[in-house]
Amino acid sequence: MTDLPKIDAARLWSDLMTMGAIGATAGGGSYRPALGDADREARGLFRFWCEEAGLTVTTDAIGNIFARREGSEPALPPVLVGSHLDTQMPGGKFDGVLGVLAGLAVVRALNAGGVATRHPIEIVDWTNEEGARFQPGVMGSAVFAGSLPIEEALSRTDPAGAVLARELARTGQAGSTAVGGRSIHRYLELHIEQGQELERAGDQIAAVSHTSFMCSGYVTVKGENGHTQTTPMSARRNALTAAAKLILAIDEIGAAEEPGGMVSASTIDNWPNNRVNIPHQTDLSFAVVHMEDAGRRRIMERIEAAVATIAAETGLTLCLEFRHFRDGFEFSPDLRQKVLSAARKSGYGARELPTLTAHDALSLHALCPTALIFVPCRDGISHSEKEWCAPEHAAAGAEILLQLAASEAGLEQKPD
Amino acid sequence: MTDLPKIDAARLWSDLMTMGAIGATAGGGSYRPALGDADREARGLFRFWCEEAGLTVTTDAIGNIFARREGSEPALPPVLVGSHLDTQMPGGKFDGVLGVLAGLAVVRALNAGGVATRHPIEIVDWTNEEGARFQPGVMGSAVFAGSLPIEEALSRTDPAGAVLARELARTGQAGSTAVGGRSIHRYLELHIEQGQELERAGDQIAAVSHTSFMCSGYVTVKGENGHTQTTPMSARRNALTAAAKLILAIDEIGAAEEPGGMVSASTIDNWPNNRVNIPHQTDLSFAVVHMEDAGRRRIMERIEAAVATIAAETGLTLCLEFRHFRDGFEFSPDLRQKVLSAARKSGYGARELPTLTAHDALSLHALCPTALIFVPCRDGISHSEKEWCAPEHAAAGAEILLQLAASEAGLEQKPD
Repeated sequence: MTDLPKIDAARLWSDLMTMGAIGATAGGGSYRPALGDADREARGLFRFWCEEAGLTVTTDAIGNIFARREGSEPALPPVLVGSHLDTQMPGGKFDGVLGVLAGLAVVRALNAGGVATRHPIEIVDWTNEEGARFQPGVMGSAVFAGSLPIEEALSRTDPAGAVLARELARTGQAGSTAVGGRSIHRYLELHIEQGQELERAGDQIAAVSHTSFMCSGYVTVKGENGHTQTTPMSARRNALTAAAKLILAIDEIGAAEEPGGMVSASTIDNWPNNRVNIPHQTDLSFAVVHMEDAGRRRIMERIEAAVATIAAETGLTLCLEFRHFRDGFEFSPDLRQKVLSAARKSGYGARELPTLTAHDALSLHALCPTALIFVPCRDGISHSEKEWCAPEHAAAGAEILLQLAASEAGLEQKPD
Repeated sequence: MTDLPKIDAARLWSDLMTMGAIGATAGGGSYRPALGDADREARGLFRFWCEEAGLTVTTDAIGNIFARREGSEPALPPVLVGSHLDTQMPGGKFDGVLGVLAGLAVVRALNAGGVATRHPIEIVDWTNEEGARFQPGVMGSAVFAGSLPIEEALSRTDPAGAVLARELARTGQAGSTAVGGRSIHRYLELHIEQGQELERAGDQIAAVSHTSFMCSGYVTVKGENGHTQTTPMSARRNALTAAAKLILAIDEIGAAEEPGGMVSASTIDNWPNNRVNIPHQTDLSFAVVHMEDAGRRRIMERIEAAVATIAAETGLTLCLEFRHFRDGFEFSPDLRQKVLSAARKSGYGARELPTLTAHDALSLHALCPTALIFVPCRDGISHSEKEWCAPEHAAAGAEILLQLAASEAGLEQKPD
């Protein structure tokens, strides 16, 4: 390993800032919802950089982009390295982007050092990881891993009614290759932590050990229409008022569960949403997350109880449903150990950490041994224009990614 | 007056039910937001009925429809009789529709009796009274009365981004005549009460005496983006949670003011409104209504105080603005007296009542002596599929409207 070439840290940082200029927001973040025009521009730049680096770029039918550096044994399954270029609305410059551009930095380093690997290495940009515009998130990787039917993904619509398949076509991102159905040797994803553990511990690298228990909750409150300027206050059956009570109740339930779990209502849709009509329907939804199955169950039960209480208090009908269950699992112990060893050999403080939230690595885990590597992000802030990863942390993560990619792809003995 | 022909009550009821079939909802109401396809169909049927009755139909540039029965002195300004055919989303079969179709019943009765009037009589369907799809409401009549510039009305957009001028054109409702700018002799509007006073008193007719003091309130809560699955609960700056507190506070303020005044938050818009992002902005709005200026001021002050308290509690920024002030006024005492006399002579219980909410009559009051006549609606329910006006009340209202229209338009002496 000692004779591996170095990551070009300055170039990686320059790439991150350059990519961040696409869809840049006044607040210092990026606004590139999946398959919008800014995402298209970001993908175009990524393809250009990959071709410039001598890679073969293909796009599959759900828009996942693969940039392949051939191995000395092309028939071997590839090591995939990547993450996603789409952002929240608005998001930061690092969530997802770091994993993709660090993959590019890895390949450039191998190129610069003239290092050949037995397995091919492919950098991947997964379509719609964020789920900010089209639900569900981690979409491209889920279709690739076979856990989400492509027909279902293609038919999803955004809040304005745009159909994903049409946006794929409109932005020129509907590729010609089939999605998945091929053997993958390893999946390696570098990501910002989105928490404060590394920062607090003064460490630079985390090997993600296990994932959380998640689900989504959906509530529909049914009230009754009426005139806001004539209906007596006591006679109002106001769906929005009942929803407000539930928003506050859910927040209290979340506060009681941290740090192991958390929940906040974060979406609301209200009908007919005008000033002269009492809302007859208000929908809420929220993500439930807990490191333990029992904790997830406890949050669900407490929300069920709050819903029942509010229904009794208001006399309105509240329908609660939980969907999209995702159980926690452990990542490959072998790869975790390799991440920790590589980090410590390179002089970094390293530790294992769980992940509360989902990443494309959660999809790929079903296909092959997978490593998810975290680097610190300032104050644990993410999904925010304030999201920030220090240049030295980005470089440290890319360095460990390089070592892991090289060892897993298998170094070809140089002829000298 | 005694030799006036009778209203055809069965035909009026049939017309109301027929009109209600356009945009009919499963719950027994109608869904005809202004300048949508159902509104276009309703307007087409209204034009057909008017032409069938021998009226001359014109449409002005904001889509107000006028169906004119010529007077024996055509140069005299017309008596306008009408209301609106657009509905809430969903609304009932009577709010607005009764005033328009009773106007048609009046003209049909005059036709059947061969009664000529000195002043022309015009039935009017005002565009977008409800303000359910395009803000503000009472739009067509406000432009007609000169209180809303037509450019401002034409440029309004609905929540899906459709521009009013384009919807006017798309649905064929952009007429060729100028809006307003002509002399109007009287404006007479029949409407359901949207309250329970007539029902409780056992009366059939109300002459509306005065109007309420109104305004609209707009609140923007500024929070901060963050990941819902990783940001510690205690570190969240959640705009939606603060908005929920304010919704409940506003509801309490409204409850303390009734029956003189009322207020409920009834619109909410939330960004970015997905399950993985803490809301960074939540907007609320609400209509304030009170029969007294001091009451309106008290509601505003209490909401200001609630906003300040919630800002202090949450550390978030809340911006509150009040707009669209409309002061109360008295309707023409002369016409009110005529309504009461006509009702009592016809054997109906009659009284004066205020109106809490706005009607097109509030716009027309600026142009000419105006009468607003109420008939009972069941349980005071309106802006609802459950809205209901008994056939005998609809007929009673049309009968009084006929008497008032005939007397104000001036009966031409018959040659016999």
